[in-house]
Amino acid sequence: MVNNDLKIFEELESSVRSYVRSFPTVFKKAKGYKMWDINGKEYIDFFAGAGALNYGHNDEKMKKKLLEYIAQDGIVHSLDMATEAKANFLEKFNEVILKPRNMNYKVMFPGPTGTNTVESALKLARKVTGRTNVISFTNGFHGMTIGSLSVTGNSAKRQGAGIPLQHVVTMPYDNFVSNNLDTVEYLERFLEDNGSGVDIPAAMILETVQGEGGINAAKFEWLKRIEEVCKRWGILLIIDDVQAGVGRTGTFFSFEKAGINPDIVCLSKSIGGNGLPLALTLIKPELDIWNPGEHNGTFRGNNFAFITATESLTYWETDEFEKSIEEKSVKITEFLNNIVEKYPELNGKVKGRGLMQGISTPIEGLASEIAAKAFENGLIMETAGPEDEVFKLFPPLTIDNEGLEKGFKIIEESVRSLVASKQLVGQ
Amino acid sequence: MVNNDLKIFEELESSVRSYVRSFPTVFKKAKGYKMWDINGKEYIDFFAGAGALNYGHNDEKMKKKLLEYIAQDGIVHSLDMATEAKANFLEKFNEVILKPRNMNYKVMFPGPTGTNTVESALKLARKVTGRTNVISFTNGFHGMTIGSLSVTGNSAKRQGAGIPLQHVVTMPYDNFVSNNLDTVEYLERFLEDNGSGVDIPAAMILETVQGEGGINAAKFEWLKRIEEVCKRWGILLIIDDVQAGVGRTGTFFSFEKAGINPDIVCLSKSIGGNGLPLALTLIKPELDIWNPGEHNGTFRGNNFAFITATESLTYWETDEFEKSIEEKSVKITEFLNNIVEKYPELNGKVKGRGLMQGISTPIEGLASEIAAKAFENGLIMETAGPEDEVFKLFPPLTIDNEGLEKGFKIIEESVRSLVASKQLVGQ
Amino acid sequence: MVNNDLKIFEELESSVRSYVRSFPTVFKKAKGYKMWDINGKEYIDFFAGAGALNYGHNDEKMKKKLLEYIAQDGIVHSLDMATEAKANFLEKFNEVILKPRNMNYKVMFPGPTGTNTVESALKLARKVTGRTNVISFTNGFHGMTIGSLSVTGNSAKRQGAGIPLQHVVTMPYDNFVSNNLDTVEYLERFLEDNGSGVDIPAAMILETVQGEGGINAAKFEWLKRIEEVCKRWGILLIIDDVQAGVGRTGTFFSFEKAGINPDIVCLSKSIGGNGLPLALTLIKPELDIWNPGEHNGTFRGNNFAFITATESLTYWETDEFEKSIEEKSVKITEFLNNIVEKYPELNGKVKGRGLMQGISTPIEGLASEIAAKAFENGLIMETAGPEDEVFKLFPPLTIDNEGLEKGFKIIEESVRSLVASKQLVGQ
Amino acid sequence: MVNNDLKIFEELESSVRSYVRSFPTVFKKAKGYKMWDINGKEYIDFFAGAGALNYGHNDEKMKKKLLEYIAQDGIVHSLDMATEAKANFLEKFNEVILKPRNMNYKVMFPGPTGTNTVESALKLARKVTGRTNVISFTNGFHGMTIGSLSVTGNSAKRQGAGIPLQHVVTMPYDNFVSNNLDTVEYLERFLEDNGSGVDIPAAMILETVQGEGGINAAKFEWLKRIEEVCKRWGILLIIDDVQAGVGRTGTFFSFEKAGINPDIVCLSKSIGGNGLPLALTLIKPELDIWNPGEHNGTFRGNNFAFITATESLTYWETDEFEKSIEEKSVKITEFLNNIVEKYPELNGKVKGRGLMQGISTPIEGLASEIAAKAFENGLIMETAGPEDEVFKLFPPLTIDNEGLEKGFKIIEESVRSLVASKQLVGQ
Repeated sequence: MVNNDLKIFEELESSVRSYVRSFPTVFKKAKGYKMWDINGKEYIDFFAGAGALNYGHNDEKMKKKLLEYIAQDGIVHSLDMATEAKANFLEKFNEVILKPRNMNYKVMFPGPTGTNTVESALKLARKVTGRTNVISFTNGFHGMTIGSLSVTGNSAKRQGAGIPLQHVVTMPYDNFVSNNLDTVEYLERFLEDNGSGVDIPAAMILETVQGEGGINAAKFEWLKRIEEVCKRWGILLIIDDVQAGVGRTGTFFSFEKAGINPDIVCLSKSIGGNGLPLALTLIKPELDIWNPGEHNGTFRGNNFAFITATESLTYWETDEFEKSIEEKSVKITEFLNNIVEKYPELNGKVKGRGLMQGISTPIEGLASEIAAKAFENGLIMETAGPEDEVFKLFPPLTIDNEGLEKGFKIIEESVRSLVASKQLVGQ
Repeated sequence: MVNNDLKIFEELESSVRSYVRSFPTVFKKAKGYKMWDINGKEYIDFFAGAGALNYGHNDEKMKKKLLEYIAQDGIVHSLDMATEAKANFLEKFNEVILKPRNMNYKVMFPGPTGTNTVESALKLARKVTGRTNVISFTNGFHGMTIGSLSVTGNSAKRQGAGIPLQHVVTMPYDNFVSNNLDTVEYLERFLEDNGSGVDIPAAMILETVQGEGGINAAKFEWLKRIEEVCKRWGILLIIDDVQAGVGRTGTFFSFEKAGINPDIVCLSKSIGGNGLPLALTLIKPELDIWNPGEHNGTFRGNNFAFITATESLTYWETDEFEKSIEEKSVKITEFLNNIVEKYPELNGKVKGRGLMQGISTPIEGLASEIAAKAFENGLIMETAGPEDEVFKLFPPLTIDNEGLEKGFKIIEESVRSLVASKQLVGQ
Repeated sequence: MVNNDLKIFEELESSVRSYVRSFPTVFKKAKGYKMWDINGKEYIDFFAGAGALNYGHNDEKMKKKLLEYIAQDGIVHSLDMATEAKANFLEKFNEVILKPRNMNYKVMFPGPTGTNTVESALKLARKVTGRTNVISFTNGFHGMTIGSLSVTGNSAKRQGAGIPLQHVVTMPYDNFVSNNLDTVEYLERFLEDNGSGVDIPAAMILETVQGEGGINAAKFEWLKRIEEVCKRWGILLIIDDVQAGVGRTGTFFSFEKAGINPDIVCLSKSIGGNGLPLALTLIKPELDIWNPGEHNGTFRGNNFAFITATESLTYWETDEFEKSIEEKSVKITEFLNNIVEKYPELNGKVKGRGLMQGISTPIEGLASEIAAKAFENGLIMETAGPEDEVFKLFPPLTIDNEGLEKGFKIIEESVRSLVASKQLVGQ
Repeated sequence: MVNNDLKIFEELESSVRSYVRSFPTVFKKAKGYKMWDINGKEYIDFFAGAGALNYGHNDEKMKKKLLEYIAQDGIVHSLDMATEAKANFLEKFNEVILKPRNMNYKVMFPGPTGTNTVESALKLARKVTGRTNVISFTNGFHGMTIGSLSVTGNSAKRQGAGIPLQHVVTMPYDNFVSNNLDTVEYLERFLEDNGSGVDIPAAMILETVQGEGGINAAKFEWLKRIEEVCKRWGILLIIDDVQAGVGRTGTFFSFEKAGINPDIVCLSKSIGGNGLPLALTLIKPELDIWNPGEHNGTFRGNNFAFITATESLTYWETDEFEKSIEEKSVKITEFLNNIVEKYPELNGKVKGRGLMQGISTPIEGLASEIAAKAFENGLIMETAGPEDEVFKLFPPLTIDNEGLEKGFKIIEESVRSLVASKQLVGQ
């Protein structure tokens, strides 16, 4: 029997544990957009497993399929052997996702984590081009293993490497320096000048909306121009859609509306459907020059995830799901704009796209305090950005109006109370 | 409906797929030490998910717990938030595994793959010591992400990196040069001579039995001496027990009988119980200097795996399980010695320890042919070693006598027929 | 006996030889600003050993001192033992150069080449700060050994390394992107944003006027702001004054008029006085934490160079020399402006500062053709820039009016004839 | 006027100065094997500029040629333009050195230092093979710039880099582990095993006798086998003959008697004849794939050095010089063997070859004390080895019997007095 006092975690778990510090309770059960701790307290989930639970918790249809599969002694673990569950997933992914979008990609199953798909993408891009260098972007976040960490901007995470992180040049993301500076022009100067010290890289890797980096949404036009620069110089374009993909920004892939056609796409988090570990690397067929087993891993064949992932794709068979995300996006934007206007003390700025929006506030520590207060009030919500200066709304895409409104109410209440307390201090 | 012709994999999956080429059928169902393809053909499993299925497929008790948990809408995915399932796992791991062995480790949950625990171990060792260099050993295999790949010996895998792999010095594993050369003396000369070009490293990382590297078992005495060298020079000792651990060599940790006390231990594969992705990094408390979130990842909280992992630890509550592994080990050794003697044409050598044994043969391609023939005859068995020169017997630890005997029979039949066909060619 | 047909060089010397291809004759004798080949043909020297012969060839006073020294069997080679010649140099350098400028530096004698002083500066900066990263600037040129090459921008030179060049981030030099873009603001954004992927570096290294990089002169204000940024972030400022120093831009150190106070200064080329190999690294006393012998080399004690270097400092005992350089600078600027105006077909742009000026022309290959034509006509002049798009006037600082005028005449004649021939082609 | 109190060096020179601490006096004049300080005290030189003064100080014939050249205003500095002095050197080097030895090499002039020829050799080997890795050997010493430092074993020097030194694997030099262990067999196991973690390198680089590393002389048979391994695996063999070359071990190239045929040879130190900076890289013609200017440097055309170097080659026109070195070698060996025998307290071991011999003693600090005492008594002699455990006899090759005997006497006196004083302490 477990108490709700976290003592066991403090005693036995490494100090590296993190979210348990932001959300200090012991969870037991979850459904849709709700979670309950072992005391039965209910929480609205505006966190959604940092984007791994886009379809909410324990979706009934996925759960049913999984229970059936387990009951029949379906294969659990298969490395990259062929299984029925995997075949079904591949077929449905092709039919529902790739074909209707006129996309032609080979599917690679790296180890079942975001960092593993990124590592596989970087390795392949270097192998294909014979170049070692990769261009990443400021405030990009791609994972914690050395290859992915090298293309990640966050200095605290980078210092954790214990070795210099190399073979990477960081270029300014859209709007990094200021709203006026055209960062693509800048980037291209480095490529075109033979004395710039920046070699033509194997690839550029980027997120279309930077989740961990502060909910920075690149303009579609900027993405399009980056793609053009890549084409001009023979550079592969890798889109890391681990967090922004699978509907989070409104479309299955986050880059659909930008009209770009990446060479390699990284997927993980919600691709498994209900939160089970899974990752895909999508590769243009002409780049699929891997030798058999050249990148491998034990858990590439997580068949439970194939079962739930396959079922989750049903959401994408019509365009209803996209429309519903769009409607919720609009509501969130309106809500956030309203907050910024109503509480000028926040000095807030609405950021992001789709169900990946938030407010940044320059007041030190305030975003974290708002999130902490919201947690007290029954809402799970995370912060982001290099100084944790953004609180971000990441509800399941399947959330209903009631859930949204409840969440909004808690957030506004948290903002109001903190602004009020700050004012008292200020006087 | 899926056919058994693999066409869908050839069309849609990346050329990196590998085991599907060795075991070309579509699997559907599995139980204990048996698997079935979609045509209903039965296979004896002497592969055990490359060590991820030490308790066999779909263990009834684990399955029951998991079905209950899912039915109750238990949390699926929790990052590193606290959950009841995680608390139960931590407690049982402490009670059943650590305490009885007088071990004192903090438990870190890195991303749920072997390479992720290795990456976390290397990062921590570098952080603790402030040194960048790590000593790895010839034919070590630690994973495919850049940090782990750097300490992996296999040249084909290393070339896949596309960048030079650095901050690592490879030293000779036990018996690498010859049976007579004392590789520890050699290693220590490099450490003690200030002109050797080898800096005192942050850590040494090694497997006690090298699985992928060719079923090379280090002598316990060699391990003990390596530990002494580490102590003498203030070097951390990391044991990668991803494949050799969780009972595979006869004890829960593979290094128990060597009497060593590693600073960091990497666990994955079978730690999840039934093949679900999970990994642990065990850290001496005084080395647990991680900052919160310094190494993170989306799927650290795979609660299904916590449920099955917790149940799996029941196997270790008494010493019966260890005894049964020991008995099977003896049988396998006898069987293999017999094969080597009976088929001198193999020029075979028995290698390994526990349920991690095999036969190496210098005849080019022969080990792979034996494995391929065995697959035709209904046995799943892998090869290992830098030239795939070893066929390895990796049955579930829970296999019964009947299963073992069936497997032995198929192996011997495969050896016999290939030796016979070689001889015909030879005449 | 040597012919003037270069056959011996083609047969025996490596294909790496370079200037012999631009100036294809065998030189025999030189005096002041003149050189003669073995056929007795005279050349005006507007190249000055790429900045190593600022005092011209075979200065009479230096020659006299050297002949005396040799006649007395003075020490030739002394590593870093103490010699009378070295003591005299140190004293005079202190009296004539450092003291009057209120500069306080320890003098280090690295190996007698530019790349060696740069390597020593980078090593010391890393040692002092404990950081590995260094910021260099686009089109910087610092040398060909791996440490210096890492901070050099030129891609052809970089590829010669054969290994990835690391531990360096290249930032835009003044005016790199456009005349309007403030590259210091840009640079500082990277330093101040914790998610930028650019760690605070050990040092910034730069030339105040980039010689090889295309005669790019940084504004004094830009240099001042770079120094401020370094101070703000605790970054060491290394000025590589190997080419721009020793009077080339008008003052002994090229940075004097910018009013900055570098932490480390690299000197070589003309510091030896008459073209003998010598290099100095000037180090703020509080940074001089070298262990004895931590950076060494065989030819640190080139006593012939101490003799001529000491004598050369006599030029700096009054301010007359500076004034005369200033006057010549003005003449060169006028001449170049006139050329640009008179020959609009050049689409020329005057660049540089002091006796380190040139004209860039965007017409492919034209600058090289002008230099080649000038050589035919008896003038030695080099090109620079990533596309060799600049022809550069680098006469000895001691050149007289007659020499300047002769050189100008040959240059104008070369420009005129090439512009004329291009037009003919164009019609 | 300079005093002999070193104050000026302490005040103005960096703490990196080193030999001035071992030989604390101000030198003024030198001739043959003798040096004089400014007080007129005479010293026997058994140091010879660490191998840069093999022909002694101020050789009369070289001096004469140089004075004539200077008097005629010969070119001093020419980068890599063609000069008469350079042509003469190339021709004589070809006639006197290469042709009689049936050697076919292109001559490259890198910057005029040992580290620069090593850097050029490593770059070229990597360019030719397309590989990044290089194998160096324990206690090798190749220079202080980053490329050369990477292949240098000494840990104190390596730490001075301030960055991890990479792209290098250090293998055991002959007799590194013990006299019995065959280090070539060991090395080759790493190359032949695909799982060894050691990629086939671009090159191996080594000295035939390690000067700084402790006067370790590799057996000729060992060198021959290393060459065979290089051939077998397509690895380039670079001999760094900077210190052991130009007659130091008895033949012009140190490897002549080993019967090997290196792909690249590095020369510097005594190649300039009288201690002036010069370096050559000798390259097999088929490997000379440099682009023009791909490796460059300001002081490649040190014409004074060409003049003296050309004259110095006269020593090699007959075999008398070799014979005289041989005779002196025998004398030195006899002297050292006698010392070891006569003073068993030294626990001494004679090491080295030719005029590059010494005695190692395990008694901490003793070798340095002997050298210090010898200096007091008028002999300049250096120590070597990772613990400075060897005192080394490095007289000019041109020394006469009287000089040798004087030196021997001072050394024996120093040994005797120190051994005596130690015994007193010991009682």
